[in-house]
Amino acid sequence: MNILVTNDDGIRAKGIKELVEALSDFGKIFVVAPDSQKSACGHGITIHDPVMVQEVSFKGTEKAWAVSGTPADCVKLGSTMLIPEKIDILFSGINQGGNMGTDILYSGTVSGAIEGILLGIPSVAVSLDSNKGDDFEASKRISRTVCRHMMIKELERETLLNINIPYVHKDNIKGVKITKLGIREYTESFQERKDPRGRLYYWYSGIPKNVFSEGDTDVMAVEKGYISITPIHFDLTNYRIINDIKDWGIRYE
Amino acid sequence: MNILVTNDDGIRAKGIKELVEALSDFGKIFVVAPDSQKSACGHGITIHDPVMVQEVSFKGTEKAWAVSGTPADCVKLGSTMLIPEKIDILFSGINQGGNMGTDILYSGTVSGAIEGILLGIPSVAVSLDSNKGDDFEASKRISRTVCRHMMIKELERETLLNINIPYVHKDNIKGVKITKLGIREYTESFQERKDPRGRLYYWYSGIPKNVFSEGDTDVMAVEKGYISITPIHFDLTNYRIINDIKDWGIRYE
Repeated sequence: MNILVTNDDGIRAKGIKELVEALSDFGKIFVVAPDSQKSACGHGITIHDPVMVQEVSFKGTEKAWAVSGTPADCVKLGSTMLIPEKIDILFSGINQGGNMGTDILYSGTVSGAIEGILLGIPSVAVSLDSNKGDDFEASKRISRTVCRHMMIKELERETLLNINIPYVHKDNIKGVKITKLGIREYTESFQERKDPRGRLYYWYSGIPKNVFSEGDTDVMAVEKGYISITPIHFDLTNYRIINDIKDWGIRYE
Repeated sequence: MNILVTNDDGIRAKGIKELVEALSDFGKIFVVAPDSQKSACGHGITIHDPVMVQEVSFKGTEKAWAVSGTPADCVKLGSTMLIPEKIDILFSGINQGGNMGTDILYSGTVSGAIEGILLGIPSVAVSLDSNKGDDFEASKRISRTVCRHMMIKELERETLLNINIPYVHKDNIKGVKITKLGIREYTESFQERKDPRGRLYYWYSGIPKNVFSEGDTDVMAVEKGYISITPIHFDLTNYRIINDIKDWGIRYE
């Protein structure tokens, strides 16, 4: 089996090394990852600039490349140009920091996996819900379990699995919940500053706050100590209100 | 009424000037837009770098700012820091180039509107399906019509309208269709080059191809000469298969 591994924390992050180690029994691993930190880059692709590519050595991999682009660039370039063999499965992560609820719209980790399913590759995104802690043991364990399942079951085309792991000791994980995306709002804030030449600039400093919503959400599952697995697709159509909008009777005149 | 206008082609693009002109009868217009071209930036926000802000003069607006960030940055910053009044409606566009089907995942224009609904602002994205043509007459006309409707009807919270206009003469538009997102695949390709120092780099050069799908899709409506309006939300959960995945019986062990 050929496994493509990417992330958005950059190819030197600890999380991607741990992910490669976790999956090394399952097949040949190819890493194509950003050459630097790309968090919150969203689902960008680079079309106005060239993308630099450098082959690097990476323990436990067949081959590895550092790319001056986003996770989506890495997946596109990896599967189209760099890796001659067919990719059987893609893992993106292990991200340092959760990717849940509406946050996934900004998430480079998830966008790597979305690019995977756009290209027809079964894909998984893995995130550890801690910005500082770097004990990836529970994350590695669930990555292996999910990889085993994906090898024998067929995941619906155009759907990826988004995994979030609570930051507790590996023996204290309460279990696994299959969830829907929750809502995560931010107390929006920016710090206003001036540069040495007196020009105005801002740093974003929003603080997340969880919002209660009915049913099993990823946000709530992780807060209660469960690993959350959410099936995600890329159809943003709000089918429920298509007929309402038709009733508006918008005409071009 | 206070109207926030943004785009991803940059504050100097013709499309945003035309949009401001189209909406000027409806209220006070504030423009917060990128200081340069940000196409295909996806739904990124800038958290690792400062965002520079410069007030600029812009005909027909109350106030206008050029921002060294993405459309999502512009909307967040505009509504949180720059504009003291409550924003009643947000328009993003008029983009030069369609934003339909799976493309909207990469679209800066749509991401500006998604950031709007994340912040609770009724939002509209407008794109002209031509990368070269710059006759925005039909686009202006439908923008005004939709703005009028949005003032009297209540669009479901957390849903935006994504408008795409075919590039035909304004008198040859066949009408308006309310659609779902179609599928747009790309013949993926990169050009491989070497820089003056012999280092490898790639330019993305994918070519879109439309894929037939059942029902009224945005891609098909525009191809047939109709203006397409698609209601879009930001819940990517694939509810249909939550139970299937539960049946997999994934356990943490």
